[in-house]
Formats: sequence, C-alpha cells, structure tokens
Amino acid sequence: MNQILGHNYIGGARSAAGQTRLQSVDASSGEALPHDFIQATAEEVDAAAKAAAAAYPAYRSLSAVRRAEFLEAIADELDALGDEFVAVVCRETALPAARIQGERGRTSGQMRLFAKVLRRGDFYGARIDRALPERTPLPRPDLRQYRIGLGPVAVFGASNFPLAFSTAGGDTASALAAGCPVVFKAHSGHMATAEHVADAIIRAAEKTAMPAGVFNMIYGGGVGEWLVKHPAIQAVGFTGSLKGGRALCDMAAARAQPIPVFAEMSSINPVIVLPQALETRAENIARDLTASVVQGCGQFCTNPGLVIGIRSPQFTAFTQQVAALIGDQAPQTMLNAGTLQSYGKGLQKLLAHPGIEHLAGREQQGNQAQPQLFKADASLLINGDEALQEEVFGPTTVFVEVADQAQLSAALNGLHGQLTATMIGEPADFERFSELTPLLEQKVGRILLNGYPTGVEVCDSMVHGGPYPATSDARGTSVGTLAIDRFLRPVCFQNYPDSLLPEPLKNANPLGIQRLVDGVPGREAL
Amino acid sequence: MNQILGHNYIGGARSAAGQTRLQSVDASSGEALPHDFIQATAEEVDAAAKAAAAAYPAYRSLSAVRRAEFLEAIADELDALGDEFVAVVCRETALPAARIQGERGRTSGQMRLFAKVLRRGDFYGARIDRALPERTPLPRPDLRQYRIGLGPVAVFGASNFPLAFSTAGGDTASALAAGCPVVFKAHSGHMATAEHVADAIIRAAEKTAMPAGVFNMIYGGGVGEWLVKHPAIQAVGFTGSLKGGRALCDMAAARAQPIPVFAEMSSINPVIVLPQALETRAENIARDLTASVVQGCGQFCTNPGLVIGIRSPQFTAFTQQVAALIGDQAPQTMLNAGTLQSYGKGLQKLLAHPGIEHLAGREQQGNQAQPQLFKADASLLINGDEALQEEVFGPTTVFVEVADQAQLSAALNGLHGQLTATMIGEPADFERFSELTPLLEQKVGRILLNGYPTGVEVCDSMVHGGPYPATSDARGTSVGTLAIDRFLRPVCFQNYPDSLLPEPLKNANPLGIQRLVDGVPGREAL
Repeated sequence: MNQILGHNYIGGARSAAGQTRLQSVDASSGEALPHDFIQATAEEVDAAAKAAAAAYPAYRSLSAVRRAEFLEAIADELDALGDEFVAVVCRETALPAARIQGERGRTSGQMRLFAKVLRRGDFYGARIDRALPERTPLPRPDLRQYRIGLGPVAVFGASNFPLAFSTAGGDTASALAAGCPVVFKAHSGHMATAEHVADAIIRAAEKTAMPAGVFNMIYGGGVGEWLVKHPAIQAVGFTGSLKGGRALCDMAAARAQPIPVFAEMSSINPVIVLPQALETRAENIARDLTASVVQGCGQFCTNPGLVIGIRSPQFTAFTQQVAALIGDQAPQTMLNAGTLQSYGKGLQKLLAHPGIEHLAGREQQGNQAQPQLFKADASLLINGDEALQEEVFGPTTVFVEVADQAQLSAALNGLHGQLTATMIGEPADFERFSELTPLLEQKVGRILLNGYPTGVEVCDSMVHGGPYPATSDARGTSVGTLAIDRFLRPVCFQNYPDSLLPEPLKNANPLGIQRLVDGVPGREAL
Repeated sequence: MNQILGHNYIGGARSAAGQTRLQSVDASSGEALPHDFIQATAEEVDAAAKAAAAAYPAYRSLSAVRRAEFLEAIADELDALGDEFVAVVCRETALPAARIQGERGRTSGQMRLFAKVLRRGDFYGARIDRALPERTPLPRPDLRQYRIGLGPVAVFGASNFPLAFSTAGGDTASALAAGCPVVFKAHSGHMATAEHVADAIIRAAEKTAMPAGVFNMIYGGGVGEWLVKHPAIQAVGFTGSLKGGRALCDMAAARAQPIPVFAEMSSINPVIVLPQALETRAENIARDLTASVVQGCGQFCTNPGLVIGIRSPQFTAFTQQVAALIGDQAPQTMLNAGTLQSYGKGLQKLLAHPGIEHLAGREQQGNQAQPQLFKADASLLINGDEALQEEVFGPTTVFVEVADQAQLSAALNGLHGQLTATMIGEPADFERFSELTPLLEQKVGRILLNGYPTGVEVCDSMVHGGPYPATSDARGTSVGTLAIDRFLRPVCFQNYPDSLLPEPLKNANPLGIQRLVDGVPGREAL
C-alpha cells in the first residue's frame, strides 16, 4: 500500500500548493491520524477541472471495451487493497472489518458490472432510421443516434459508505463508464481511505493507458463550491444531506450554463406492517425490523425511519415488542463526531415535539448512538408535519398508528418523496390493500414486499432514487446500471457516410450491439 | 369546427372567471380577430394544475394501448380539421396554407408515432433480475424495474410552429404518451388556433374515455409563472427564447421541490462550407443555403445563422454569390409584430458591431422582414463575442472567414451549444477535416452532412436538443420518440409476487415487449 502523501490528484500528478492542513481522525477515539492532507487552493480546483476537461475528448472517444478494461483494472486494484487498508477504513469510520471487506467487494463488483454494461453496448442507445429517398412529398435522410458522455463530472461521496458511495463508488463508476472524466471531492470523514482508493484508480489508469486527468481528487472543506461552479464541470453526483445536496443544486442552477445535479439526500423509508402479517408472524417482523433499524448504527440512506400500522391489539403488541427489542440494543459508535451530533439534534427535535412520544431507548449521551423508538400521531403525517419528514440519520425509527385503511392512504399521501417503501404482509393483505402499490409508486423509487430496505442490490433493475427530497431528480438512480444514463446525452448524425460514423452506428454493426433500426430492435448488419 | 369560446380548459370543462380579455390579431394586417380569450385567474391556473394532478393516477395507470388509442384519436381529430381551420392558422401566423397543411400532417403523424412507441413498449425500459436464493454470502431478491410518467407536465408552445410545437405538438404528445396529464399555456400569438386544437384533443379524450383533466389549457400573459410554480406540476416543456426559457428554469429550480425543465431556446446552427465542395459546386450550395436561410422567413430553431469557410478565392466568390441571392430575396411577413420587432433589434446589434460588416439586404423597415447577410471577423468567434452567439430569429445569416484549418477548429470551439451543425463537403474534405466530427459532437445535438438544418424529421433517431443554451438539458430531445424519456422515471419492485406486478414486468410477458432479463434482452416469458 502506498504511503499517504495527502496531496491533491490533478491530471495524473500530485499537487500541494495550499497552506491549510487537514487531519483525519480515529472515529472511535477521536484521535488524529498521523497524516496531513493539503486542502486544494482555488487554482488547484481550477486545474483539476481543466485536467478533466482536457482528458474528456480522448477519454470519451475510447472504445467502450477500453473503458471496460479500465473499470476492471480499478476493480482488481480495489480487490488487492489488503488488511492494512481495511484497518485504515475501520479506523476512520468505526465500521467493522467484515462490513468493509464486504463493501470492498461490492465496490469492485460495481466496477465490473459497469464494465459488463460497456461490453453489452445498450448504453449507447443506438438508433438508426434509414434513408427513404423515394418518400413523398419529401425524402427522408439517413438518421442515426447514439449517446456520448456529458463531460467532466464532479462527484461528492458519502460518509456512510466509504467505499461503495465514495471515491470509487457508484457515481464515479457510472461517470467513468459513460466516458466522463471525474473530479472527486474527498470526503473529510475518510481522507486516508480516499487516498488509498484514489491511488488504486490512478494505478489502474496507468496500467490501461488512460489519459491523464481521467480521475482527479481534491481535499478540503468548501472547495466543492468552486468545483460545481467551474465551467468545465458538466454534471454533479452527490450523496449526503438534504441541506448539502440542495445547496449544490442551487449553485448548479444559478450557473451561466446550468448543469444537472444528481443528489441522493433524504429518505425516511416507510415500512407498512399489514394486519394479516401481524396476525401470523409479529415476533419475526419485530426482530427483523429492529435489526434493520440498528444495522450499521442506522447509518443507511434506506434505514427504515417510519413504521406504519393500523390500530389493533396486534399492532399495539407489536409496538411493545419492538420497544422491548430497541431498549435492549447496545449503543454503537457512529461514523464521526458530526454524525453523532446530528443524531442527537434529530432526537431532540422528536423528543420536543408534542405530537411525538418516546417509547424506548436510553438517553442519548456520551460517544455512542443509543437506539431509540418513537411514536407519532397519525395527524402529523396526514398534515405534512415536517418533524416526520426529516431523516434522523442513525438507529431510530418512528411508529405511526392509523385508524383504518382510508387513513393509511391519507398518511402515505402526506409523505414526501422517498427512496423506498416497504410492505410487510400476507397474500390476503396485498389483496385487501391493493391500492397501496400505485400510491407508493408515486412516492418512491423502490417498493419492497416482505423484506427490509437496507441492503441495496447492485444490478440492472435496482432503483436507488425517488422523488424529491429523496433525490434532486427522480429520473436517475445512483445504484445499479441505469445510473450511467444520468451522464449520457444523445447525438444524431444525418446523412453521414458509413466510413465517418462512430462504430456503434456503422452499417456492419462491428460491435454486435442491439440497435433500433427503423423501429425494430436487432443486431443485424445493414 | 367548434365556435371559439375563449374560455380556459380545466378538467374537461370550460372556465372564464377572469376579467382580462385578450385578442388574437391577423399577423399580416394587425387587425384584431373577432374573438375574446379570457385570461386565466390565479384560481383557474391552480384548478388546471389540480385537474391534471387528479387525472394523473388514473391516466398513468391506463395500459399503453389505451394511451396509444387516445393519441391516435387526437391524430384523427387533427387531420379532420379542415380548410376553415387552416385559414384561421394562416391568419394568426401569416404562414402559407401549404405549410400549415404540411404541419398539420406532421403533428398528427407525431401523435401516431408516439402511439407506435407505446405499442412497442420499449419506453417502459423493463428490466428483470431474478432472485438468486442460493447466492452466497447473501441471496439476491427478485428485482424488476419499469418506468412511469413523472406527473402533470406544463407545456409552453412556440410561435413558429403553431401546430407541431404548440398545443398538440411534440412536448404535449410525448408527455401524454409518458402517462403525464398536460396543462398547456396557449401561445398568445395563435390563440384561435390553440382553441381549435384543444377542442380536437378534448374530443379525442372524450371519444376514448380518458380521465377529465388529462389535457387542460389556459390563456393569458404571465399566467405561466403560476403554472411552473404550482406544486402539482412535475416537469416543464418549453420552446421559445433564451430569456423566456431561462426564466422558467430559474423558477423551477427555486421551487420547494425543484422540477426538470426542458427548454429549447437558442441556436445559430453553424454551417461549415469546406474547400472541395466550393471547388465543385459553389453555385448549388449558394442557392440551397440561401433557400434555407429565408425559408419560412427564417423562423426556424434550426435556421442557419452562421456560415463558416476557409479564406480562399472560392470562398470570396461564394460569399458574393450568396450576397447577390440574399439581395434578391423578397421580404416576408413574420409571425407577429413582436417577432418583427425582435428581428429589427437583432439586425441593429449586428449593424452596430465594429467587427461585423453588412454584405446584402435592403434596409429593414415596414411590416415585413428583409433578408440580410453579414460578415463577421473570425476573432469574434474565437474570443466568444456574444454578438455572434445570439440567435437573430429571422431571414439572416452571418458569414465568417477563417484563415486556415486550425483557426476553423478554434472558431468552432468558441461556439456555445447548438441544436445542429452542418458540414458541406466532398469526401476529400471529410478526410482532411476529420477532427470536426468529434469536435462538433461536443457542441451540438445533430450533425448533418450535405444537407440543411431546417427540416427536422420526426423519427426514433432524431435529436432536436443540444448543450446549453440550445436547450436547458442536453440529455433530452423535443423532436423524435426519445422525447418521451424526459417525462419518465424508473420504479423498482423488490420481491413482488407475479400477481401484483404491473403488466410489463409479469413473468408471462403479456405485452410481448422486449425486456432486459438477467442482463440479456429478450421477449421470452419467464
């Protein structure tokens, strides 16, 4: 493993022009780690964006197979990061080693999946309408369309997935796959981790002879603003708080040239526990739900922050079961002091609310997060009270008891946009509550039955997105292969001779990809 | 043809609560037409948006075939609008009858093409990843994805295509196809036309039993702002000026819930005339280019506003040929007084610029637009002078002579985003100037060889879009079937039993559509 240098990554070189030194801390002890990271200067941010812009024409013009080889090389380098690396990540995030080992595999697997997408070629969206020279009153020219990368992408990683949603995470993977060079803003919560991962990416870039500047990384607080406002940046990927994400959206929209921002921000992920399920298996549900609430100290975008049931003796008993389980949960160390502080503040808001009752959990104090359970009046949901719409990031959830089926719909209608919604039920429940699927479709990006929203599979069908404020643009996903679409735009060629067309659109179909030809999908040569 | 009522269209009924009366004028004479249109009140705009929102759940849940039948019924109603209707459109826009007849066919053809897309089913983007219960360390749940309409869409039509880019134009067609009810803001330049078209849509909606509120229309100036700010509106389609489009983008971005805006705004559509082509066929190029510049009084988004060539005796002679042709062109009546006034102002800016020379065209005065030709110094392009970047909407174009091949690239690099770029050349030209295609790809949505950008085919492969300021979002197109993508978002179902899945995702594939199953496209039942 390389030594930590702490310098910014610009155009394939390292740069440390600034005076501001930053330190990473041991998430459990608060002790500073023995490395300095040099905050990027305005000139360095400019240079990083320009390095990405300089790499763009060459990088986007590489064949998809060459880009796939780059992603696979990154995957190999990530897999080769060993125990020493895992120990660094654990120290910076207080996450357990097994989790980091698993996340490393998820992150390299994600790179390989995007490599597969590149080899498959459907991301090109190739479409061909052949000329109709005899058409009357006007002939039709030959028209062909494919998609290219938007340009340099700025990526802001998340604290809670120091690998899978960070330096080499889904946003970086999908942007690189799309042919967009990346400028990554290292997360201040795991800068040593970020450096090791950036080194891995740079090694892969060198091994596969990628253009210098295909990946850049800057350290520092507040430097992200310069990045988002930089004219060379053409899109932004972000995972984090609603406040932070919205600020980036506002900056991007106010630019001379507005650019798209894909911010994954705030979700409380309602879980609806239906009556028959409670009849048949309340105890199991209580156990699994509690496990999902406290898993990873509740530090998941898909943590179930709201549990809704219909008033009944069974739901009352279920609530008590969960309260007992939550009360038994051990406190856990959070990602960093800021996260713990936010958790404490979020709990205070719930505790202070007259419509919300505290059901279980030891008083929040000290260096660890205490799991908590609350119960809120259904009217708060129906009337859109903000206290229930805000994500409290950590091991806590709020129960809501509705009077009946009609009030359940009213309560769900009161919700803002979410990443996920979950229904726990038996077949009879789903028959009786059939109105819920179409209702939830309008609110969320993913609906789960009889599962828990934590655990986001990386695959073609995943949607880790949803209406605002879950994300800033419900048309995107930040997990799964559809994520590449966020960074692509279509280009059309009219009346081009075959020799001048890009490979995906040539008559012979040399890439063997599926194309829509005169309205019919196929792989035939023309 | 129905009588003109002049009332707003809200939820399937007509409403005229306001006091402000508007009139449409004869574009040629300036005379007021004998109809009053009642400007929508704030309450009526609210009611229109709410009617669209009320229609959304039912409308989006209709099968794609039912929506296709609706679009086809609209097409039939449009085709049935006869000579009397054409006369009204011609009166309001000063466009010739043949053009309006053609545009009517284009508009109904567009509706039928989207119906075809709905029957084809690829817009669903269906993806299935089947469960892997035996996978270690964790099983994979069954995950399935398809796309649904975003919600109610506000559409603002253009003046220059009173049918194809207006009430029943591409934005309306693609939004309705996506399952999004529409609130259309009638263009003040052709309100009688808008009313007849809205009546046609409403007749089609009634004949095919669509939910009331699937299509709504409001009259008035300034009422669009209420619409874009309305919480029920989930996306905006716009065709018009950069100033107008940007204002809508800014409003949409500042909402509590920001929404996407697809604004097609400003493009000068560079045409590059290459040396060999000038050697072999300068006269034909001069004639065809001039025809493209003055066609429809230059009132096209794709009007060629900039012509670039390399300094040579041939280019000088070509410039003189075009100057002679432009000088011979008859003046034409513009769409309305405002358009003529803008044209005059645009010309004044060019005339006043010290780096721009006037080559041909009679002095702009009176009620018609005089075709004009200008020549600008190449340095203006290279240095990004704003005068050359702004679209002058009307029958005028600017020639730029560059010193050599290198300066040609520098000049093109100085351009803002465009809808189109065109190269006129011989095979030897394209070989010699092979760097131009990748360069232009980064600047535009469509590149044409040996054609003219006016004339935008409606088909699967068309891109009528491009980087800012050509549009507000280069990832969309407002012409062609890909336009539907702007109004769709993905939803994922996890662990759903077959009986509860939407049709496109059921095991049996009852719609017979192509789906991506475990990474492989196919139509098989599972």
